[in-house]
Amino acid sequence: MSAIRRLEESARALDSSVTPNDAFREWFAEQRRTNRYAVDRIPFADLVGWRFDDDGDLVHETGRFFSVEGLRVRTAWEGRDASWSQPIINQPEVGILGILVKEFDGVLHCLMQAKMEPGNLDTVQLSPTVQATRSNYTGAHRGAPVRYIEYFAPPRRGRVLYDSLQSEQGAWFLRKRNRNMVVEATGDVPDHEDFRWLTIGQIHQLLQQDNVVNMDARTVLACIPLFAQEEQEGGAPHGALHTDDEVLGWLTETKACRELVQRSIPLSAVERWYRTEDEIGHEEGRHFTVVAASVRATGREVTQWTQPLLAPVEQGLAAFVTRRIGGVRHVLVRAETEAGVLDVAELAPTVQCLPEQVRGLPPGARPRYFDVVTAAAPSRVLYDAVQSEEGGRFHHADNRYRIVEVGEEFPVGTDPDFRWVSVGQLAGLLRHSNYVNIQARTLLACLRSRSRGEGRGAGHGG
Amino acid sequence: MSAIRRLEESARALDSSVTPNDAFREWFAEQRRTNRYAVDRIPFADLVGWRFDDDGDLVHETGRFFSVEGLRVRTAWEGRDASWSQPIINQPEVGILGILVKEFDGVLHCLMQAKMEPGNLDTVQLSPTVQATRSNYTGAHRGAPVRYIEYFAPPRRGRVLYDSLQSEQGAWFLRKRNRNMVVEATGDVPDHEDFRWLTIGQIHQLLQQDNVVNMDARTVLACIPLFAQEEQEGGAPHGALHTDDEVLGWLTETKACRELVQRSIPLSAVERWYRTEDEIGHEEGRHFTVVAASVRATGREVTQWTQPLLAPVEQGLAAFVTRRIGGVRHVLVRAETEAGVLDVAELAPTVQCLPEQVRGLPPGARPRYFDVVTAAAPSRVLYDAVQSEEGGRFHHADNRYRIVEVGEEFPVGTDPDFRWVSVGQLAGLLRHSNYVNIQARTLLACLRSRSRGEGRGAGHGG
Repeated sequence: MSAIRRLEESARALDSSVTPNDAFREWFAEQRRTNRYAVDRIPFADLVGWRFDDDGDLVHETGRFFSVEGLRVRTAWEGRDASWSQPIINQPEVGILGILVKEFDGVLHCLMQAKMEPGNLDTVQLSPTVQATRSNYTGAHRGAPVRYIEYFAPPRRGRVLYDSLQSEQGAWFLRKRNRNMVVEATGDVPDHEDFRWLTIGQIHQLLQQDNVVNMDARTVLACIPLFAQEEQEGGAPHGALHTDDEVLGWLTETKACRELVQRSIPLSAVERWYRTEDEIGHEEGRHFTVVAASVRATGREVTQWTQPLLAPVEQGLAAFVTRRIGGVRHVLVRAETEAGVLDVAELAPTVQCLPEQVRGLPPGARPRYFDVVTAAAPSRVLYDAVQSEEGGRFHHADNRYRIVEVGEEFPVGTDPDFRWVSVGQLAGLLRHSNYVNIQARTLLACLRSRSRGEGRGAGHGG
Repeated sequence: MSAIRRLEESARALDSSVTPNDAFREWFAEQRRTNRYAVDRIPFADLVGWRFDDDGDLVHETGRFFSVEGLRVRTAWEGRDASWSQPIINQPEVGILGILVKEFDGVLHCLMQAKMEPGNLDTVQLSPTVQATRSNYTGAHRGAPVRYIEYFAPPRRGRVLYDSLQSEQGAWFLRKRNRNMVVEATGDVPDHEDFRWLTIGQIHQLLQQDNVVNMDARTVLACIPLFAQEEQEGGAPHGALHTDDEVLGWLTETKACRELVQRSIPLSAVERWYRTEDEIGHEEGRHFTVVAASVRATGREVTQWTQPLLAPVEQGLAAFVTRRIGGVRHVLVRAETEAGVLDVAELAPTVQCLPEQVRGLPPGARPRYFDVVTAAAPSRVLYDAVQSEEGGRFHHADNRYRIVEVGEEFPVGTDPDFRWVSVGQLAGLLRHSNYVNIQARTLLACLRSRSRGEGRGAGHGG
């Protein structure tokens, strides 16, 4: 059986004899109970190993990890020139987000980790087998070796099923990407108490809950080419409204017109942002702040460290509008340009914004389809849950993820910033980097999770 | 008949009743005779509209066009950290390189332009229908309107057959890309004396000569998906040594390991480069110089302007090693990281270097396969000609392009920086941006040009 077919079988397996759902719940509750931590805001001056350099950039004294810098952006937006500057996280290292899979009782299982991160809302969340920066896994900072890294770093002990660089939040990171990997283990895999084997179906069920499956697990999950093959065979978009070439052509045209120019500048030269002794923020309280935190974790080991964190000013909203077109499930993607994107624009959710800030705007100035996704009747809401973004860099950064179904009356229009793409097309683009942004990848995982087999049915026009 | 099939028919048409080969030769000779120009080196101080700013960057007073700036690069190369700084051209505008095609007597023809560019070695060369920066075609600099632009800029008068952003020289340009387009005209197309309709087969024949088909025409030509379909149907690499996913996985691994960090710096802060009153150059005479030129052209109109040009210190070498594997033509590509690349590494020729500088190195320090491509027996050389790079930015920049066939004794090894890819695979990657560098695209066009039908045969294992 092909690897993809076996992964699809795993997505249909809603319980497991390796880790039955009850046993998982017990273990996960125990993990959350025993891995306690305290995160306290501190003045920047109390950060250990971090300092503001001559440019006002917040940097680590080793020059590694990440830094908070300034970025000036110029872009042509709907024919008008737009220009702004902002703080941004620069983390050039490419880390590994890797899920190890292995067959038990004929079904592929994913080795998932209960992982604490300082910015998480609910202490421990479920993360990929490996979630490590390059400094982590090459031992650049004297931490413990990264468990199971030998399955992902060459020469690796396994067979690669998926491997691609995928982008992270363009509004907060400068051209940041991580390597998303799925590797099938050859041979026995040692157990560890912080890890459990789950089917993709089990993880999909957990995605129905708030703040259980972390961002890094969601992006890898989204990249697994589930149910896409049937729809995408031959590169021909069976039943998709637009061919792949039409979608790529539209994105090319958008990129060519927007003409994004990014320029790193000293953080001290960023306009309309202030710095106090314990916060960098926007004059009007918009977007996010950068703060310093002291982290004290008490699990099996007691650890303590300090680090900067980026804290959004409110909970975000990321939503897909979806409908069937000719029987095939489509989502309405938006070509989104954010300050730090690598390649001008990526396919993003229909709506992606900070909703309270939007509600302060006159209706005409709101993002398109904002009301469609926020005011949808409950029967139209296919998915609705709060999920956290990366807790290693962000403090209490979460988004309400929503998928709203619309009917045939909804126009299949030609708004130049939007396109209807089939779910299979969207998944197919994940073979390549920098086409689908991280919020859209989370939504893709959520869409697949809500009803097993629906994704498959979509491919058959069912 | 599908668009691709019709393009393939055009590639087999070696003469044309619209522009017979004799008539073309006469017209082209006349174009070269009548479009004369003089290019003279001048001091930077004599440039009109250009100045050195406070950072020592060479900029245009409007802030548009392009600038010459500094770039600092850090990358991990074969496990070692490498770091350098250099001057680089920053031209954020995305221009259009577009070939208009139209059917005459049942065969698709390309509308090609005889175009003068200041840096060209042989005055006029054959260029795409449209070769224009955004400033050109939006009228930002008060020039004449760009002829035939209405077929490429929206709302366009034609059907798009190909449309993608493709990279240019990463050693000289910071993340530069142009939009490569092929558009089929709907309706009549007015004639113009500087333009002629040629079949792809005729252009391929002209590629056998030195310095006739310009770089911009070559890249668009390479992007036309000729003969690739048969080999690539279904995304499955029929007969290719590695699957597409294996090739992409290898490239992902390379990118993740090399970890390229680029940082714009003031040109005055670049180390080991000097600036005199009329030249910016490397202390040891390596790489290139930046000079100022006065251009006086006398054709139908007399025009004069001044501009900076980048002048390489010697003629380059770009070569593919090729062989059949299992009957299918493959080329040996190298994952090349250059200072200005957008995405860490692109697929490049087997050998790409400045050969005189290489000959000064001890044999062990030379690029791999250098001797294979330079010392090949004549019977092994499938293609060998000198072609110019972009004459609007570079002064007398040319490369010797070579394609060298090797036999079964040549190892199908696993050098981590190289991979054998089928010609169809390479062509398939050109649907996307930033996979195949510009020198490799020229070689792909050259490989197809040398024997019509060979490319097709390769797809069938012939």
